Amino acid sequence: MHELAQAPQLGIGLIGSGFMGRAHALAFRNVGGVFPLDRQPRLELLADHPEERAVAAAASLGFRRATGDWTALVRDPAVDVVAIATPNRLHAPMALAAIAAGRHVYCEKPLATTLDDAIAMTRAATAAGVVTMVGFNYLKNPLIATAREIVRSGEIGTVTGFRGIHAEGFMADPEAPFSWRCEPEEAGGALADIGSHILSLARYLLGEVESVCGRLDTIHAERPLPGGGRRAVSVDDQASMMVRFREHPFTASLSTSWLGSGRDMQLAFELTGTRGALCFTQERFNELRLYRAGAEAGRGGFTTVNAGPAHADYAAFCPAPGHQLGFNDLKTIEVRRLLDAVAGRAPSDMDFAGALAIARAIEAIRLSSAQERWVALDEIPDA
Amino acid sequence: MHELAQAPQLGIGLIGSGFMGRAHALAFRNVGGVFPLDRQPRLELLADHPEERAVAAAASLGFRRATGDWTALVRDPAVDVVAIATPNRLHAPMALAAIAAGRHVYCEKPLATTLDDAIAMTRAATAAGVVTMVGFNYLKNPLIATAREIVRSGEIGTVTGFRGIHAEGFMADPEAPFSWRCEPEEAGGALADIGSHILSLARYLLGEVESVCGRLDTIHAERPLPGGGRRAVSVDDQASMMVRFREHPFTASLSTSWLGSGRDMQLAFELTGTRGALCFTQERFNELRLYRAGAEAGRGGFTTVNAGPAHADYAAFCPAPGHQLGFNDLKTIEVRRLLDAVAGRAPSDMDFAGALAIARAIEAIRLSSAQERWVALDEIPDA
Amino acid sequence: MHELAQAPQLGIGLIGSGFMGRAHALAFRNVGGVFPLDRQPRLELLADHPEERAVAAAASLGFRRATGDWTALVRDPAVDVVAIATPNRLHAPMALAAIAAGRHVYCEKPLATTLDDAIAMTRAATAAGVVTMVGFNYLKNPLIATAREIVRSGEIGTVTGFRGIHAEGFMADPEAPFSWRCEPEEAGGALADIGSHILSLARYLLGEVESVCGRLDTIHAERPLPGGGRRAVSVDDQASMMVRFREHPFTASLSTSWLGSGRDMQLAFELTGTRGALCFTQERFNELRLYRAGAEAGRGGFTTVNAGPAHADYAAFCPAPGHQLGFNDLKTIEVRRLLDAVAGRAPSDMDFAGALAIARAIEAIRLSSAQERWVALDEIPDA
Amino acid sequence: MHELAQAPQLGIGLIGSGFMGRAHALAFRNVGGVFPLDRQPRLELLADHPEERAVAAAASLGFRRATGDWTALVRDPAVDVVAIATPNRLHAPMALAAIAAGRHVYCEKPLATTLDDAIAMTRAATAAGVVTMVGFNYLKNPLIATAREIVRSGEIGTVTGFRGIHAEGFMADPEAPFSWRCEPEEAGGALADIGSHILSLARYLLGEVESVCGRLDTIHAERPLPGGGRRAVSVDDQASMMVRFREHPFTASLSTSWLGSGRDMQLAFELTGTRGALCFTQERFNELRLYRAGAEAGRGGFTTVNAGPAHADYAAFCPAPGHQLGFNDLKTIEVRRLLDAVAGRAPSDMDFAGALAIARAIEAIRLSSAQERWVALDEIPDA
Repeated sequence: MHELAQAPQLGIGLIGSGFMGRAHALAFRNVGGVFPLDRQPRLELLADHPEERAVAAAASLGFRRATGDWTALVRDPAVDVVAIATPNRLHAPMALAAIAAGRHVYCEKPLATTLDDAIAMTRAATAAGVVTMVGFNYLKNPLIATAREIVRSGEIGTVTGFRGIHAEGFMADPEAPFSWRCEPEEAGGALADIGSHILSLARYLLGEVESVCGRLDTIHAERPLPGGGRRAVSVDDQASMMVRFREHPFTASLSTSWLGSGRDMQLAFELTGTRGALCFTQERFNELRLYRAGAEAGRGGFTTVNAGPAHADYAAFCPAPGHQLGFNDLKTIEVRRLLDAVAGRAPSDMDFAGALAIARAIEAIRLSSAQERWVALDEIPDA
Repeated sequence: MHELAQAPQLGIGLIGSGFMGRAHALAFRNVGGVFPLDRQPRLELLADHPEERAVAAAASLGFRRATGDWTALVRDPAVDVVAIATPNRLHAPMALAAIAAGRHVYCEKPLATTLDDAIAMTRAATAAGVVTMVGFNYLKNPLIATAREIVRSGEIGTVTGFRGIHAEGFMADPEAPFSWRCEPEEAGGALADIGSHILSLARYLLGEVESVCGRLDTIHAERPLPGGGRRAVSVDDQASMMVRFREHPFTASLSTSWLGSGRDMQLAFELTGTRGALCFTQERFNELRLYRAGAEAGRGGFTTVNAGPAHADYAAFCPAPGHQLGFNDLKTIEVRRLLDAVAGRAPSDMDFAGALAIARAIEAIRLSSAQERWVALDEIPDA
Repeated sequence: MHELAQAPQLGIGLIGSGFMGRAHALAFRNVGGVFPLDRQPRLELLADHPEERAVAAAASLGFRRATGDWTALVRDPAVDVVAIATPNRLHAPMALAAIAAGRHVYCEKPLATTLDDAIAMTRAATAAGVVTMVGFNYLKNPLIATAREIVRSGEIGTVTGFRGIHAEGFMADPEAPFSWRCEPEEAGGALADIGSHILSLARYLLGEVESVCGRLDTIHAERPLPGGGRRAVSVDDQASMMVRFREHPFTASLSTSWLGSGRDMQLAFELTGTRGALCFTQERFNELRLYRAGAEAGRGGFTTVNAGPAHADYAAFCPAPGHQLGFNDLKTIEVRRLLDAVAGRAPSDMDFAGALAIARAIEAIRLSSAQERWVALDEIPDA
Repeated sequence: MHELAQAPQLGIGLIGSGFMGRAHALAFRNVGGVFPLDRQPRLELLADHPEERAVAAAASLGFRRATGDWTALVRDPAVDVVAIATPNRLHAPMALAAIAAGRHVYCEKPLATTLDDAIAMTRAATAAGVVTMVGFNYLKNPLIATAREIVRSGEIGTVTGFRGIHAEGFMADPEAPFSWRCEPEEAGGALADIGSHILSLARYLLGEVESVCGRLDTIHAERPLPGGGRRAVSVDDQASMMVRFREHPFTASLSTSWLGSGRDMQLAFELTGTRGALCFTQERFNELRLYRAGAEAGRGGFTTVNAGPAHADYAAFCPAPGHQLGFNDLKTIEVRRLLDAVAGRAPSDMDFAGALAIARAIEAIRLSSAQERWVALDEIPDA
């Protein structure tokens, strides 16, 4: 009989216990069993408002302590990493306070609700030298890592085109109620809310955006308020955009919509190269469709590749191919990357600067739509 | 034993016997067995150059006579309908001559290689009162007719968005040789050659275009000549465009490419409505994916509808669902529509005026790309 | 101007003008434009009952003469080939009369309604030396020819398994009326009516059947009569069977059902080899899914191959891949094979002997089900 | 600041730390964050051989203690539940010892390597009144629960047919080495190893098996030994079977193979009813294809339903549809059911008696194959 020594630990403080807060908590619980870690996350403190809510969530998610006061959390000496999963307008003050207290920060997307805030947060993090990670979790899919590998290795030749979309249908009904997602002050609108995912994916595969030309549509000009009455909507229901990248000679065609009736998670792209192509949709995110030129006549076509241990990170979850990862597993991979960055093993692959790049592209698209012209990213302030 | 009286006939003169010429001939042979007709097409005369080629084609396709001189064909008194399946720059002179001779004209797409020609052809046809049909055959798919019916009936609510593409991969290889498709004088380039299909499909479903903002890319600046050496390419390899329609409040996102590695026929769209959605790709053109809101919880999603006798024109080919139409069957439906228009049963559903609308949209997209701005269709000359 | 000489002709006599009769007629009309032929089929004479029906069909399909008396047709000196598309119990007398008159015979499946008849027909055809073809048209798909090529060439190693089905849903409703398909005297029942297709496909790919073990189910014991009342059903609604082949060491698993709710044409198989696999369904019959072992780690999977000119017969319809063949095109290929056999270019690839092999397998499966044991094909009488 | 009281706990002892042992451990770690539990699992003790291996696994998976002696584990007073994830022949002695010590038992499939053992284990568990659960985790998929609900509610009418398969390709290569899976003493062979999954799924949906007729094939008669040389194989590479159920009038067609080249996880079925149908494959286990009769003409077909919070257990992982569960999440659901059974909230839905039913069906299929006849389940000994 062997008693295990306690592993070195890292104190986690989580602010917010809704959909994303729970996803963070599950990932922190799970990550140590999946991946080898230098320090095991300890679910130290959960903050939410009011305190009873925090206590209930802490109990169900396995945190040691709970508080109704997030400012106490960021200052708590037992907290090493602050995870922020709160309404968007709170990201900036919370992250800035956490950084000021010297904490590493894991923040849900979007980084902030204004570009100024995003810039300030990025500068603060850089100045403080803390690790940051922003929750664009779809990038953590092993098959997306594989896609990037294929693009970068030249396996399908030179990249010649990209077409992408993120559409969901949760606002398709004109009577879907006005919510925080409809508030410009909350970084509302389809472009910021979900379009940011396809922008981050395009950037992950293709590098930095150079210029954009876009158009935002507000199709449903008003929506019912939950308590009765109606309220005018100023944010976009959908957006189309043409995007050019610094390192590529082509124009990508992107779009996003939350009026996508019938769609739960159509985050999808098609990428072409001179000697092959890739197709992907998050709707079947354990599959990557790969075309490679050069098959003998009558034998070529797109191959459906199933996720398996040959693809980054998959093997840690399961040694056999085709068993599939789920949404929460992507979050576990994200936390692993965060913890590796904290341990100094590898830089964060989606830090505040990365999220700021997405925010700047969104700002450029909005400006382009308003002024009906192409906008260079250089026109948009940076950190 | 009953001898059948000969049916009234309509003399067909076909110019050109390549891919599309053969497709026309097959459709004229076949249509009388599939659909009830007032007059049976008689394969009267085939013109090609040189005459031996015409003779060989006439023999294999079943024409009565052959000629090396297309001007004789358009004047031949036994020819009632002139079908034009020749290189693009010949469409205008041939169609104008046929119209001048009072013939009905069935012309392959594109209508012409210049907007001026397209306008002149449309005016001439209108003035002469002849029937015209242009070969945008993908519109003839029974499931596309069904899609239009669904859109127009309000079956999926109000239309809120459209995303479309036509991509093929035949020029993906930078070493694919320079051909007539690379000649601006032949209406070359991906936008005119194949992008016209997705534009015609969008127009068929959504009505006339109001304004466009687009960008054309020439990715491979030169290509090898078949005889050796290389030649600069000035036409587009691909194009992205945002398109607005007169009757709709949204911006459609379209693209086209002939660099679409792995794609043989990706003519595809996704259309969303407030209470449903449609997805379609010509890659599986006997299927239409239909979403309708309102299913009970946990039972909704996209339904894959197989083409069957409930869909326009299908039943004439086969009384049982799921047996499938082929490419040549679409051409047969097109010829049926032509013959119905000649018989005065229904107007042509894709006459020269319709094809001119597509040509004007293409011109507007090119202007938009050159000037990096939105262009209203009203800026482009019309017939 | 060149007048074409009339091509040598072959007189076609068609008996029956329903679904299959029309399909035959369309194929005979079309085949000469698609394929090079020694003699062009001439739609000489159509027989149906009553004569008015024959006359109307002859007019719409383009036959020269019509008759209400099929015995006159088989004796008519201008008829070289007799095509039989009549109720199943008439196949035997018509084919035997046509053979007796020295005609080549193109007969719809099933060959006959009794094994004795099938044997007699096969013997008569052999003795007379006429060409025969039976309408198992799904075998004519270019991708099925490709599948056979892949199997025979060893491209996917040694074949190790086969699983197949033919299911349709037209009798799924217990209130679907009693029809000729429910009559044992008409070779009714799912196994004979549609199961014969998957048996013919398995035989085409794997060779002759050695032994079978099957079970037939009659799920709906009675069905409404069209005129009112109900009638007991004795034929099978579905069947399961294990099948062994002479040339292979494995047991195939086949099934068939006309209770296949939601299925229009699920004629499908999966075939495995030691170094690859094939998947196919007639529901997407322009696609063949091909797996080949040996891809580098993380890049393998099933490739979706689109039908194209690299696959047998496709190029005659269209020079470009991905344009797709339709159901009637398969019938055109079948007629081409018939005419090639008449011309002495190649033996019929599905003659009466081939159809008899299917009939014997069905007989063996019925016997197996009745006696609950494995049955060797050798137990069943042969021609 | 609120300190959470420690939740009541349940001590978990895990034997084995390979693929399945890790999966168990992850599920026990995760379940408390996902589902509300009466007692939180405490990873108390891990046993493996040799002890160093146990210590390393315990460290990486977060167990408190480790041992090289599983007999100490089953007797350890801090262990309430024994999880067994060891080679198959060890399941019986370990489970019997755990039951003898009064522990609840969570055992990987198969229950045992002989029917006698399986019967003894079932009897012992019943006599001791402990909770048991066997790891047929694919049954825990929320969409499989939905499928059962659809079947039982009559939502698609009366069930008329079932066709299923479990195929994987890991032994497709004749040179794949001899392993424990090839040992009859380890319950080797495709039927027991993976065919048990499709049998358990069929039973879950359709109830108890009445009789079977099957055939086992050993295609590759010998395989290389890892250390050199070759060894004869006596177990089956694949099996076909016809299966009848007590409560249904039809014959199901099932098959299984580990020679399924290109397949990672083809656990799939098609189920038909008089008014609808279901299709499912574990290859896309977050989708269920549902057909329901009664759509208006031209609008019907199979609907692809994405897993979402309307389906059992899904909502605990994620409140939004289409985000998808992964393989390990199914194991988490399984552990939740185990813990609920331990808490007396609901009986185990796959206890030893359930696993014994699968083992008896397998025995019957083997007997059927050996004797080439139908075998009634009543012929096989039961607990």
